[in-house]
Amino acid sequence: MLEKSVAGKARRGSKTKTRVRVFEEGRMRVRPDSLATEEPMEIRLLAGDTRKTVAVTMRTPGADFELAAGFLYGEGIVSSTEDILKISYCVDSDVSAEQQYNIVNVELRGGREYDLRSLERHFYTSSACGVCGKASLDQLEIKGCPAIPTGLEISADTITSLPDKLREAQGLFDATGGLHAAGLFDAEGNLLAIREDVGRHNATDKLIGWALMQGRLPLNKHVVMVSGRSSFEILQKCLTAGVPIVCAISAPSSLAVDVARRFGMTLVGFLRSNRFNVYSAPERVLVRS
Amino acid sequence: MLEKSVAGKARRGSKTKTRVRVFEEGRMRVRPDSLATEEPMEIRLLAGDTRKTVAVTMRTPGADFELAAGFLYGEGIVSSTEDILKISYCVDSDVSAEQQYNIVNVELRGGREYDLRSLERHFYTSSACGVCGKASLDQLEIKGCPAIPTGLEISADTITSLPDKLREAQGLFDATGGLHAAGLFDAEGNLLAIREDVGRHNATDKLIGWALMQGRLPLNKHVVMVSGRSSFEILQKCLTAGVPIVCAISAPSSLAVDVARRFGMTLVGFLRSNRFNVYSAPERVLVRS
Repeated sequence: MLEKSVAGKARRGSKTKTRVRVFEEGRMRVRPDSLATEEPMEIRLLAGDTRKTVAVTMRTPGADFELAAGFLYGEGIVSSTEDILKISYCVDSDVSAEQQYNIVNVELRGGREYDLRSLERHFYTSSACGVCGKASLDQLEIKGCPAIPTGLEISADTITSLPDKLREAQGLFDATGGLHAAGLFDAEGNLLAIREDVGRHNATDKLIGWALMQGRLPLNKHVVMVSGRSSFEILQKCLTAGVPIVCAISAPSSLAVDVARRFGMTLVGFLRSNRFNVYSAPERVLVRS
Repeated sequence: MLEKSVAGKARRGSKTKTRVRVFEEGRMRVRPDSLATEEPMEIRLLAGDTRKTVAVTMRTPGADFELAAGFLYGEGIVSSTEDILKISYCVDSDVSAEQQYNIVNVELRGGREYDLRSLERHFYTSSACGVCGKASLDQLEIKGCPAIPTGLEISADTITSLPDKLREAQGLFDATGGLHAAGLFDAEGNLLAIREDVGRHNATDKLIGWALMQGRLPLNKHVVMVSGRSSFEILQKCLTAGVPIVCAISAPSSLAVDVARRFGMTLVGFLRSNRFNVYSAPERVLVRS
């Protein structure tokens, strides 16, 4: 069964109605239209007496709790659902009604230390860890990402069937034309879950956050497919979740390919209904002979 | 003349050669390929005795100094070239050769205070400033962004001519199929400058950084066109640079439209060679009658 229900449903919808002027065939006319909603969301950690804002991200409302869980998992702050006591919208009296649905509190289980240093990496690196692609890969190993186990196989025909399945399930895209999607498939090409967002990293975080909250991690038997390009960050998130096969409609970056090769992930790009490229670990892809 | 030369040319190229397996017509073959390079870049501020890392961003090498300048301008840390004494790659002896081209030092003119608080907004917001779309718009006003002056006009035919011009100038896209672009046009549709990057925000920062370093800001007579979608952050960067007309190949988010409407910017989306949508300030668009 395709999982489309979400945990954390914001009051503001994921679509915003508007009016737009359309220029076509030499003339301008006014038409109603739908936009993908973009609103900031703040993630606050509560652990014992500590209360800390760890991120403010522009996101499409919906699946907000999954986004928070997936973000914290991807950053290495939580490693299982047991670390999370409760996820809820902030209802502090000093927070206005509209903002309540843009602030998500994540209450962490006490009695252990949480490493928040990774959150500072975007703004600070010590000279020891270095700033280059190789150092970025080394950091993933230091963080404890193991190589992905071999064994899973997928047929080339199954791979070429994925874009249409993802596209058909993209309900918000149909309405707005403007959303990234991340889909979770099994190796037979069945779509298990899909999440959408204006930010492609957010769509992946929502998907992995859903899997975390469902107790489905690691995703060792699965394929993640993203609607756009693949970057270092997309591969990093999939690696952390144990995903052996990552597919993208568009091109990978050099560092996405480097991550896939270092950790034995199969990376597919330029995936269309009749073709694709394999950048790493091609042994998982079976071609009918 | 189209400006394609760049300030800050990294040693690592913007393309990375690789080998890829292509699945097509039922069989797999090996082919050489080019990837868009993705490498981290650290921006360090030097002001008097202060030395501070303000950002680490994944970017495509090339136009690194423009990226640094555009980032600092967009964040409101520098407001003119006079604030910048010097931009250079870091050549500290404790930094390895490869990393030297990933660390950019920006030396600021002394004798004034620089407000670095905006850099923390991604990770911290006080309860006073709030977390919602409206508060994000209010912050742009507090930051001092004025409404964009009226007066500039552009014909619908000129607008529909932009996508082909941008695409033709995208040299890296041709090689890699995987890069965002931001182009600067005048109101007659002449392409003045183009910058590419794996990150769409970076492409816009590079373009505006170039304009800053050329003494061309504000861009009150210009059109910025981006190859993908338009978001809050793209509109924010264009607003700060004074751009009255922003065009995008794909959809805008709700908050992109909100920024454009609040500050009187003309926002065009779904721009193709025969059609486009106008989301705000349509009076700048002239339709031949």
